[in-house]
Amino acid sequence: MACITRTILGIDPGLANTGWGLVKQDGYKLSCLAYGCVSTKAEDPLEQRLGKIHAQIDAVIQRFEPTCCGIETVWFGQNITAAFATGQARGAALVACAQHGVQVGEYSPKQIKLAVVGAGSAEKDQVQYMVRQLLDLPDTPKPDHAADALAAAICFATHADVAE
Amino acid sequence: MACITRTILGIDPGLANTGWGLVKQDGYKLSCLAYGCVSTKAEDPLEQRLGKIHAQIDAVIQRFEPTCCGIETVWFGQNITAAFATGQARGAALVACAQHGVQVGEYSPKQIKLAVVGAGSAEKDQVQYMVRQLLDLPDTPKPDHAADALAAAICFATHADVAE
Repeated sequence: MACITRTILGIDPGLANTGWGLVKQDGYKLSCLAYGCVSTKAEDPLEQRLGKIHAQIDAVIQRFEPTCCGIETVWFGQNITAAFATGQARGAALVACAQHGVQVGEYSPKQIKLAVVGAGSAEKDQVQYMVRQLLDLPDTPKPDHAADALAAAICFATHADVAE
Repeated sequence: MACITRTILGIDPGLANTGWGLVKQDGYKLSCLAYGCVSTKAEDPLEQRLGKIHAQIDAVIQRFEPTCCGIETVWFGQNITAAFATGQARGAALVACAQHGVQVGEYSPKQIKLAVVGAGSAEKDQVQYMVRQLLDLPDTPKPDHAADALAAAICFATHADVAE
């Protein structure tokens, strides 16, 4: 992994809030380029909410030109309504990845915690603390969705095939 | 409803198979313009499957220029994994609707059966038989996903606000 240099997108999808973050990998060194969150209003038509998620992730990809993307697999503790809503947001965001040839890696919550904290059973605030430390950020990224997106990008950096 | 003329898209989303159909509404008369199904391979990367669904629904919208779209709400009998997969396909398809200003109406399976058959407890083959009758088609549309998509479009025709 020592010589690899690439920009990795992380996405934490949700219909109300989709977090995103960009991690630059330069060998073993990771740094944060940017992070943010796409928020949509519950009172807006569903297709417009999904269109906004797609458009903003598309804009982020165009601006930072990541070649790959880490994303969490579904959390099976969700109820079926929440899983369906999250699935729709995830579909909207991943269309943007497909349109720009961004390679997507899916990781379980346990894999992400192991990659970031070193323990698959880590608590949420431990993950956020380590995201800040690993990326040498002055503060913990807010909102939590952005920190979770950065954690998924960090996980990609440590897991993905390095043959680029 | 007597004077309305419009083209209605129907979508039956699924990660492996997304059915689509186009119904022309001319007052009380309904007719079928086209129908089909976007199929994706399980062995292809997720983002490419979602990108294909989006691209083909986008192409259908560009060709037939529907102004509105009927789609079924989640079927709560699904397990959480199936709901998540369907949600992703639905998100990919609805991004195409958003990008072309296509107004989306969501209907429960019961609403669609009521609109097409006149009975909310109708069986699947009754729905497919009535889709063929209502649209004066020589055969029952195949695959079933296409027939279900046409049923959702018919439901939109009978439910949606006619103030266009």
